[in-house]
Amino acid sequence: MKKIVYYIASTIDGFIAGEHDDVSGFIQTGAGVETYFNEIRRMQTVIMGRRTYEFAYRFGLIPGDLVPLYSHMNHYIFSDNLQLDHHDEHLKICKLDVDEVNNIKRTSATDIYLCGGGQLAGWLLRNELIDIIKVKFNPVIIGKGVKLFENLEDRINLNLIKSEHYRDGLQVLSYEVNYLRSRINS
Amino acid sequence: MKKIVYYIASTIDGFIAGEHDDVSGFIQTGAGVETYFNEIRRMQTVIMGRRTYEFAYRFGLIPGDLVPLYSHMNHYIFSDNLQLDHHDEHLKICKLDVDEVNNIKRTSATDIYLCGGGQLAGWLLRNELIDIIKVKFNPVIIGKGVKLFENLEDRINLNLIKSEHYRDGLQVLSYEVNYLRSRINS
Repeated sequence: MKKIVYYIASTIDGFIAGEHDDVSGFIQTGAGVETYFNEIRRMQTVIMGRRTYEFAYRFGLIPGDLVPLYSHMNHYIFSDNLQLDHHDEHLKICKLDVDEVNNIKRTSATDIYLCGGGQLAGWLLRNELIDIIKVKFNPVIIGKGVKLFENLEDRINLNLIKSEHYRDGLQVLSYEVNYLRSRINS
Repeated sequence: MKKIVYYIASTIDGFIAGEHDDVSGFIQTGAGVETYFNEIRRMQTVIMGRRTYEFAYRFGLIPGDLVPLYSHMNHYIFSDNLQLDHHDEHLKICKLDVDEVNNIKRTSATDIYLCGGGQLAGWLLRNELIDIIKVKFNPVIIGKGVKLFENLEDRINLNLIKSEHYRDGLQVLSYEVNYLRSRINS
């Protein structure tokens, strides 16, 4: 089974976007962002929620196309209602279902990049499907917006496995999810 | 003017306590916590909100007394309605007011420890009164509860000044608040 890696930029107060999906306060260039690009360049599968896919429309994505930054990857878009007239052969629309996700984990050539958003990440975490969480903590506070994990019910314990510090203030913390200890302590 | 230092434990998703003020998922011992105790031992002034002060009642605090852990400090409790029959001579109940806070910053012998909670921290940040934020990121996700900063309206930019990593998974990130850059970008 390959791992699902949630590799995501966040404010220090736990938001991956502000109101109206504003991400203008996040660091977009520099060594930490380059490291992120290098890591996702090695991944051949990306999963995302409908809102995240549609968010790319504002940056010129044509509905049905692969997201340019991830064009080397197979795309799985989770949605019960996304309608596309045509779509790239490497893009699949899936119902959000544990078996479907496990099938992707079984068949993917590499670990799987979960690029967001908070709704999908919350659902995957509730169903014990996320393996690694890498948070790019940006030196900013926004107070409200899209949460790192939406609609979470129970506490989830983590093991810190890596801490990367960049001169522009980006701090990347990598965790593996400890579902066993989470269940014992809940 | 002395600095206000918000030195606080948080989950990686931005909560300083869970529902019903549950803090049982936070690391309570070890090297990172010792470092924190050593730092606050050097501080002679603590400020907190009413809810944070009353939270200590559950751990045996007698209303009006100093919080045992901070008994070497002058206490300022911000509240418009906290009533105490008697109180320690080193404890003062204050109305939440910019002049009052600036007066504490002018007269304190040392930097000032803001021990919480989210409501007071949000108000102080909105009024550009917090100088340093030190977040003890605990390796845990809880999804809901008391936010690091409640009721924030605008984006606040930070400069990362220190990053401390502990073997138990605690990661302490220290920031100075950059109100000038926040105003320029808003």
